[in-house]
Amino acid sequence: MRMATDSFLDQQIVLDHGTGARLSRELVEFMVGVLGDVYIGEMEDSAMLPVPAGNIAMTTDSFVVDPPFFGNGDIGKIAVCGTVNDLAVVGAEPLYLTLAMILETGLPIRRLHQALVSLRDTAKEAGVKIVAGDTKVVGPGEADGIFLNTTGIGVFHRAPKRMTDVRAGDRIVLSGPIGNHTVHLLSVREGLGFEKNVLSDCAPLNGMIDALEEAVPADAVRSMRDVTRGGLSAVLHEYAAALGRTLRIEDAALPVDFETRMAADMLGINPLNCANEGCLALFVDPDSVDSVLKTLRAHPYGERAVVIGEVTDRAVKAVELVGEDGKVSEIEELQGAELPRLC
Amino acid sequence: MRMATDSFLDQQIVLDHGTGARLSRELVEFMVGVLGDVYIGEMEDSAMLPVPAGNIAMTTDSFVVDPPFFGNGDIGKIAVCGTVNDLAVVGAEPLYLTLAMILETGLPIRRLHQALVSLRDTAKEAGVKIVAGDTKVVGPGEADGIFLNTTGIGVFHRAPKRMTDVRAGDRIVLSGPIGNHTVHLLSVREGLGFEKNVLSDCAPLNGMIDALEEAVPADAVRSMRDVTRGGLSAVLHEYAAALGRTLRIEDAALPVDFETRMAADMLGINPLNCANEGCLALFVDPDSVDSVLKTLRAHPYGERAVVIGEVTDRAVKAVELVGEDGKVSEIEELQGAELPRLC
Repeated sequence: MRMATDSFLDQQIVLDHGTGARLSRELVEFMVGVLGDVYIGEMEDSAMLPVPAGNIAMTTDSFVVDPPFFGNGDIGKIAVCGTVNDLAVVGAEPLYLTLAMILETGLPIRRLHQALVSLRDTAKEAGVKIVAGDTKVVGPGEADGIFLNTTGIGVFHRAPKRMTDVRAGDRIVLSGPIGNHTVHLLSVREGLGFEKNVLSDCAPLNGMIDALEEAVPADAVRSMRDVTRGGLSAVLHEYAAALGRTLRIEDAALPVDFETRMAADMLGINPLNCANEGCLALFVDPDSVDSVLKTLRAHPYGERAVVIGEVTDRAVKAVELVGEDGKVSEIEELQGAELPRLC
Repeated sequence: MRMATDSFLDQQIVLDHGTGARLSRELVEFMVGVLGDVYIGEMEDSAMLPVPAGNIAMTTDSFVVDPPFFGNGDIGKIAVCGTVNDLAVVGAEPLYLTLAMILETGLPIRRLHQALVSLRDTAKEAGVKIVAGDTKVVGPGEADGIFLNTTGIGVFHRAPKRMTDVRAGDRIVLSGPIGNHTVHLLSVREGLGFEKNVLSDCAPLNGMIDALEEAVPADAVRSMRDVTRGGLSAVLHEYAAALGRTLRIEDAALPVDFETRMAADMLGINPLNCANEGCLALFVDPDSVDSVLKTLRAHPYGERAVVIGEVTDRAVKAVELVGEDGKVSEIEELQGAELPRLC
């Protein structure tokens, strides 16, 4: 078996790592070795996996984050978190992930190793197994280093949660500050220096969601979303459209770190539109808000959980911001956030 | 909803089609509209899908075929066939696919539409549904037009088939000619003119496999593989390694079309190493070979099925070729096939 020796790690990806012959096979053996007991696939064309009868959750995400290796994370970590979080927010327990890679010729194998180690460690934290893989190699300039896809399956032990379960009067809770992931990445890209103090929030949130569901009544959290591409603004617009209601948030309540706000101002971006990778927006029965906040705050990924607004009884699809002066303005849905490749 | 109007089709992909705001949403609506009733996803972060209890099959593939649009197919068709076939060869009924795209800025939306129409039509033929999707957009030169990932789930109505179920004496059957897909693509790439007469064999094979399993005893077909990257040579080496046995094939029995052989000679490639997208290698109980051949040949994708060799009782991992002169030579596992981006 091809091991992670220094001489192998010093090599680069070549086209033949993707053409199905010996070099391909050796690269797969190397990757399976790095993943260790997180990898449970068979060397057949498909994995064969036990599931209980009933509904499963399934979701897919490709990851093209630029740069793929940043201050406190990398594409391997994001690739697990993104898919695990998408399963967890609909109420499923994430079980299995597939892992597909598109590698650009010339990628140092040491970088691939680094991404796989992160991926493995994050999968361990999230309690998911990698069950099948695929590796494609393209020529120089035909991709940008490394692109990953993870597709995940989860099972339901509780009723699935849907956007349409949200009711007028529900409170909107954020599990943590917004904007940090985007500011961190843009700062690394542009060399602005904020990346030392503003870290990505990238994290698998299924553990925190499990703790929450155990602590509060079944319908206390009506629905939730991880706040990723498009930012909080996109999430709120999505719910406003699904519910046909006006959502209202308070500017003063929005958790934005001081340095993040400073950097966002400098970059000309609004934290409301920034992608995050470890932040939940929760729609919560008002009677349960205190226990939801208490449980979230007891978890390392939810220490700064806060109520930011509510679902109004106004049956008009809109998202409103209450300014610090009490003035209400509408948050328009952006045509585009012009913030590509943050995940 | 954003419809497939001429003015929309004449546009190109821009970065904001991937940043999670309005343009992203409109592109998703357009794609869902094109997929029609083949798309059954919910607009939640995960699809929720019924499955029976027991084992499921799961497989993933990314597709980077170059060129993405060729004579008798495109990346959309290949993306369904590749994953459906990987599920079907282990004995599963393919049910659900996810679809993730990485699009390069500047891709004409008309091309995306073309790929989606192929994908939809092939999914209909294969009887699978698209249950979740993801779209990422990268800048010019950061990808090559369009990359797709499909990840599939299948369910087992029969016992799963594994490589290790193959026994000494089993016959090796090919469901059709080899080399055509590779020659077709290389000919399109290089403008050699063969692409008019040598077509890709790209096809979803689950229907033919179903027909076969209904017609023959349960263990008549011990195991099977679709012959893709690395070609027949890679498949045979994989089985030789899994079984610890010598596999022997007859050169004269190999189904290679005349023009394909001519083109392969000109290109300096061996059809044994060529990727296919609609060809099965089957390991068959010798008592059932006739009925397997008869059933395969009754299906449009198996008309030219033929026995090409057998699994010997020699307990040495090797693949041998019997020449037309009766001389036996060993087929070495290639280091690399130097044939990138054929799927």
